[in-house]
Amino acid sequence: MIFYDISMTIKEQMAVYKDKEEKRPHLIVKSDFSNSPVYETRLELDLHTGTHIDMPRHVFPDGTTSEHWGHEEFFTRCVVLDFTSSDDEMVTARHLEDKDTEKHISNPTIKRGKTVLLKTKNSLQDAFDFNFTYLARSGAAYLAKKNIRGVGIDALGIERNQAGHATHKLLLKAGIWIIEGLCLREVPEGDYILAVMPLKVKGVEAMPARAVLLDPNAMLIP
Amino acid sequence: MIFYDISMTIKEQMAVYKDKEEKRPHLIVKSDFSNSPVYETRLELDLHTGTHIDMPRHVFPDGTTSEHWGHEEFFTRCVVLDFTSSDDEMVTARHLEDKDTEKHISNPTIKRGKTVLLKTKNSLQDAFDFNFTYLARSGAAYLAKKNIRGVGIDALGIERNQAGHATHKLLLKAGIWIIEGLCLREVPEGDYILAVMPLKVKGVEAMPARAVLLDPNAMLIP
Repeated sequence: MIFYDISMTIKEQMAVYKDKEEKRPHLIVKSDFSNSPVYETRLELDLHTGTHIDMPRHVFPDGTTSEHWGHEEFFTRCVVLDFTSSDDEMVTARHLEDKDTEKHISNPTIKRGKTVLLKTKNSLQDAFDFNFTYLARSGAAYLAKKNIRGVGIDALGIERNQAGHATHKLLLKAGIWIIEGLCLREVPEGDYILAVMPLKVKGVEAMPARAVLLDPNAMLIP
Repeated sequence: MIFYDISMTIKEQMAVYKDKEEKRPHLIVKSDFSNSPVYETRLELDLHTGTHIDMPRHVFPDGTTSEHWGHEEFFTRCVVLDFTSSDDEMVTARHLEDKDTEKHISNPTIKRGKTVLLKTKNSLQDAFDFNFTYLARSGAAYLAKKNIRGVGIDALGIERNQAGHATHKLLLKAGIWIIEGLCLREVPEGDYILAVMPLKVKGVEAMPARAVLLDPNAMLIP
């Protein structure tokens, strides 16, 4: 069965947004076998470090928080679009439209109800890149019109240096959820089922998540 | 489609093991709209608070850690066994054997390759109960012989007051993973698919997880 784990590994020495030390996770050992019969650890994790879902509250004061992420979002049809050969630092409406009309793909790839994952040059490197490829405002507007379900990207942000966080706001206003921090290096372009299961934290603007891609036609357990 | 979210909600005022303050999660707001264009939170979470998987390192100095939890464990066939009508404070080999041979269930319910979830009186209450129902050593030995995949329980511990953590050690030595902190109140006894997706934290003895139960016969997305 097709199975890709597309989640970042959480560890102290991982890439964090803009290399900010305060965004680094910490693992604090609370007991080990020198002082206890059990080994126990506490995790300190910025909710925007590693693979995570952004909820509207991240950019809107009156936006919804984690408990509004419903169970219909756990498993969605999904398409991975590969932009690794592009020299541009952003994915625009034109890039997306080109994919949608490529001759060798029989159906329009960006369809109502799907989640769209953007594989970019970001997937080819491990360290944080201040010039990471992002989804441009025009690309977000293109996707918002398509009534898709969610958008994911292989960067710790879905946009950078855009006034007023236009990409976040266009998507979230359209009811499209955002997943950041995906690892897509090994994943070929194509259709999958995306399983995303975030931690069930109450009342927050972002949720750390595990995300995997599955065979779109398979039974879960044959 | 059948769908039960069997994960605990992570929030400051949740039940934690033995009501210990140091096991309580904290949500620390790092920026809000008074000082930033975005809202961002940091989470401090004991790895044994809320729904989580125990790895062998939790009780064995040379035990394996999180990276050894493989992708074949994300989706498993599973049976929920209901012991809520039992007056005993533990699930023993006899309790399990009784379930296995009940006349109204056509097949043996505890089978090789399955995950077994124990629904007990713990599911009927929200606060931490110092006398929580647990899996007795004899029950663990019974399950270890069945070559099952995993065991889950609706308590923050799978055992209490057993010398040397016999239940943990019997199960983990047999290669059976343990999931603690499940919410099974609404779940009827029966067969399901269990989807468990833990945070991908490297090198730890326990992993916070989201867990849901699905229709055992359904396509993931019809």
